[in-house]
Amino acid sequence: MTGRNVDFAGGTRLLHNAGAMRVSKLIGPDLKRVLESTPEALTEEVLDELHPEDLAETMGELADPQVRQLLAMLPIETAAELLERLPEERAAELVQGMDTRLSALLVTEMAADDRADLVQELPADAREEILDKIEQHEPEVAEDVRALTAYDEESAGGLMTTEYLTIEPALSVARAIEHVRQLARDQDVESIYYVFVVTYDKLVGVLSLRDLILSEPDQQVSDVMTENVVSVEADQDQEQVAQEMARYDLSMIPVVDAQGRMLGVVTVDDVIDVLEEEATEDLHKMAAMVPIEESYFQTGFFAFVRSRVTWLVVLFVGELLTAGVMEAYEAQLAAAMDLVIFIPLIISSGGNSGSQSSSLIIRALALGEMVPGDWSRVFYRELGMGLALGGMLALVGFARAFLGTGISGVDPLAMGLTVGCSVVAVVTLGTLVGSLMPLMIQRLGLDPAVSSTPFVASLVDVLGLIVYFTIARWIFALGF
Amino acid sequence: MTGRNVDFAGGTRLLHNAGAMRVSKLIGPDLKRVLESTPEALTEEVLDELHPEDLAETMGELADPQVRQLLAMLPIETAAELLERLPEERAAELVQGMDTRLSALLVTEMAADDRADLVQELPADAREEILDKIEQHEPEVAEDVRALTAYDEESAGGLMTTEYLTIEPALSVARAIEHVRQLARDQDVESIYYVFVVTYDKLVGVLSLRDLILSEPDQQVSDVMTENVVSVEADQDQEQVAQEMARYDLSMIPVVDAQGRMLGVVTVDDVIDVLEEEATEDLHKMAAMVPIEESYFQTGFFAFVRSRVTWLVVLFVGELLTAGVMEAYEAQLAAAMDLVIFIPLIISSGGNSGSQSSSLIIRALALGEMVPGDWSRVFYRELGMGLALGGMLALVGFARAFLGTGISGVDPLAMGLTVGCSVVAVVTLGTLVGSLMPLMIQRLGLDPAVSSTPFVASLVDVLGLIVYFTIARWIFALGF
Repeated sequence: MTGRNVDFAGGTRLLHNAGAMRVSKLIGPDLKRVLESTPEALTEEVLDELHPEDLAETMGELADPQVRQLLAMLPIETAAELLERLPEERAAELVQGMDTRLSALLVTEMAADDRADLVQELPADAREEILDKIEQHEPEVAEDVRALTAYDEESAGGLMTTEYLTIEPALSVARAIEHVRQLARDQDVESIYYVFVVTYDKLVGVLSLRDLILSEPDQQVSDVMTENVVSVEADQDQEQVAQEMARYDLSMIPVVDAQGRMLGVVTVDDVIDVLEEEATEDLHKMAAMVPIEESYFQTGFFAFVRSRVTWLVVLFVGELLTAGVMEAYEAQLAAAMDLVIFIPLIISSGGNSGSQSSSLIIRALALGEMVPGDWSRVFYRELGMGLALGGMLALVGFARAFLGTGISGVDPLAMGLTVGCSVVAVVTLGTLVGSLMPLMIQRLGLDPAVSSTPFVASLVDVLGLIVYFTIARWIFALGF
Repeated sequence: MTGRNVDFAGGTRLLHNAGAMRVSKLIGPDLKRVLESTPEALTEEVLDELHPEDLAETMGELADPQVRQLLAMLPIETAAELLERLPEERAAELVQGMDTRLSALLVTEMAADDRADLVQELPADAREEILDKIEQHEPEVAEDVRALTAYDEESAGGLMTTEYLTIEPALSVARAIEHVRQLARDQDVESIYYVFVVTYDKLVGVLSLRDLILSEPDQQVSDVMTENVVSVEADQDQEQVAQEMARYDLSMIPVVDAQGRMLGVVTVDDVIDVLEEEATEDLHKMAAMVPIEESYFQTGFFAFVRSRVTWLVVLFVGELLTAGVMEAYEAQLAAAMDLVIFIPLIISSGGNSGSQSSSLIIRALALGEMVPGDWSRVFYRELGMGLALGGMLALVGFARAFLGTGISGVDPLAMGLTVGCSVVAVVTLGTLVGSLMPLMIQRLGLDPAVSSTPFVASLVDVLGLIVYFTIARWIFALGF
């Protein structure tokens, strides 16, 4: 166990117990008590012992006024780092309840990307108020925030920070190292381990600190830099940014404009958050929900109802069609009640195979393994898959229908054949609808994840009933 | 557009076109032609212009013998890096077809984590052969591979590399920087930006290169290091490793044994791969499939059938119960054919609400937002959700049944009430089964993602039918 004993507020506690229990749950109540009774006990020394992330998670257990009190007490850098690590919505809420002088100071001190995200969360008037205040003292910070908030939150521009190191290509390696060493002191630079080489704002190369250390001091930067820089454009979607970084194993990727001018960098920690968010978003969409950003217990009851009800109603109304189909075949059904018995079995088999196909295709599209133009390869593959899988299930279905019917005078063989053929047809219908629907939706420029499992299942329910009744009519017409 | 013009094999081509098209598709055919006709044209200079990842992806377009030819031609470091970037299965295949002397040389040159993964993929006899060969020249490499392959592939130990920097706490900062500078030359060290402080093998602290640069040269390492090191144990699951790194924004996490002795480090690029794999795995499981590791088009037809058929058969057999339930109520159904009409509508509404709930809970469990012990909070929340959502859908259902029936002499009000009440009950059944099932499965120590959408839907189909027919019997017994 990774543990560490720290004397905190008079007691000895195991502070970091990886995975099993969050530190915040352990020290939250203590911290609350200390804040209420003896806030002066929270010396810098005590706070230094806590990882800022653990402290930030502890804030989750405290009420807003207590957190504001704590933020005001802490050294400004620590307070700013805490704000960076809180969820944006919470941080924005906290900032709104503060004196503008303090909040402007805190926001200025935050990392460029996090502070832009926070400001973006504020209502318009609060946003202008804080930006005006910042402008009075640090006009370039206000300008930076304005520039960053102009990008779509889910684009490379919205993710990037403007705090990175650049050098000129004509510099010597020795001068470049000196430059990095000086700037390492600057708390604002996200990483000193990558230096971008820029001429007239254009990105022309990249150098790692390791490259610099390994080069001869009198070599020129342009001779030792890597010219083939992988970069993204500011308006590219965050999912693409994550894919590029994952592919090339980058810990940092430069963001450029259409002319190749360097605008910022996206760091790997932000990309990890993006990957988790996008996976959650896709999962929620695939279960026919409007994605929820906060965690399960942090989301309010009515926010959940709103996120879930729209699709449920749409699907329910769509599923009403099944009642219409059934009515149309009512006379046929009344004459052969045995047909009715297998309705749920048959339509669900199409829903199941369809949900497999749609999940496979949606994930392949998300990972960039496939494009909508691949539809014909997908079509033949899923057609084969549907026939193979359907064929196997049909054997079970045939046996059940053949052996289990006949009470009402229906021919068991006709019933068995009807169920068997319908299962093959409906399972294949499922694989085809499930696989082609996401491709079509992506081609239309929409998110394929909305062709959710329930959506595919509902569509297949309606079509599957028609297929089942049609096959039944044919087979019984053959004179059994 | 991020572009770069390179004179390659006589033509000027746009090499890197971020996102839109893979470099491999562009240069793959050219590279193939060059390899076949004039392999000597592939000078080191030409290859230097290519990013190793692009070159590795190009290998995907070539046949095994051509790739082996290329690997034999390339400088050994480049060839080893290519092998690191190929999928493990492909790399293992390539290595098996090579002369053992060459393959041992290449594998020795690879990064410690990647070479262990490759060796793990080899069949037992090929594995022993190559390890024996490596042992002759580099016994410590063979030992390292044996140690790493002993860990579960999906654990921290299976992910880690043994190539990292350590220093003693008693060293001065100046000496430590000198030490790092020397080791930076060593190609084998994954990153020189974090140095781990170790006494008698125990991990006691961590220092970034930035910390070192900013400290006074005569300070002692133990005075400037961070003692609160976030670490993981070797047998922890890779998903937990990813979560810890994401939480603390780490680019590297040390792996220790139960006694706190340092064993290796896991780097962020491997964790990104883990996050993508785990998200894919969960999605496949949630669609009732055995997860598939390779991409859609790389997976063979029969591998897909195998991955999909098991669950489909299980679900189909389970769904056979619906036929049994229907048979039990056959007399009642024949007397009121209107009841039959609404069967698909009612059971699908439970499947849809259930799939929402199960997706929410499975994701919350995967992200560590929830533990099975939270079941009672979840129960009350989903009970409320089911009643609220079911209530809204019931209005639509009531209207449809009330207005659309009566042809067969059934009382429209009784039909409307039956459908309305059943929708509320079945939707609530769906939210409860969908949310509690994953918690129960996790409590049993299994992966909650197996309580897939189709699984929940099938269970709710069977239970939903019983609920529907029971409610119908009650309401019609009231004397309508």
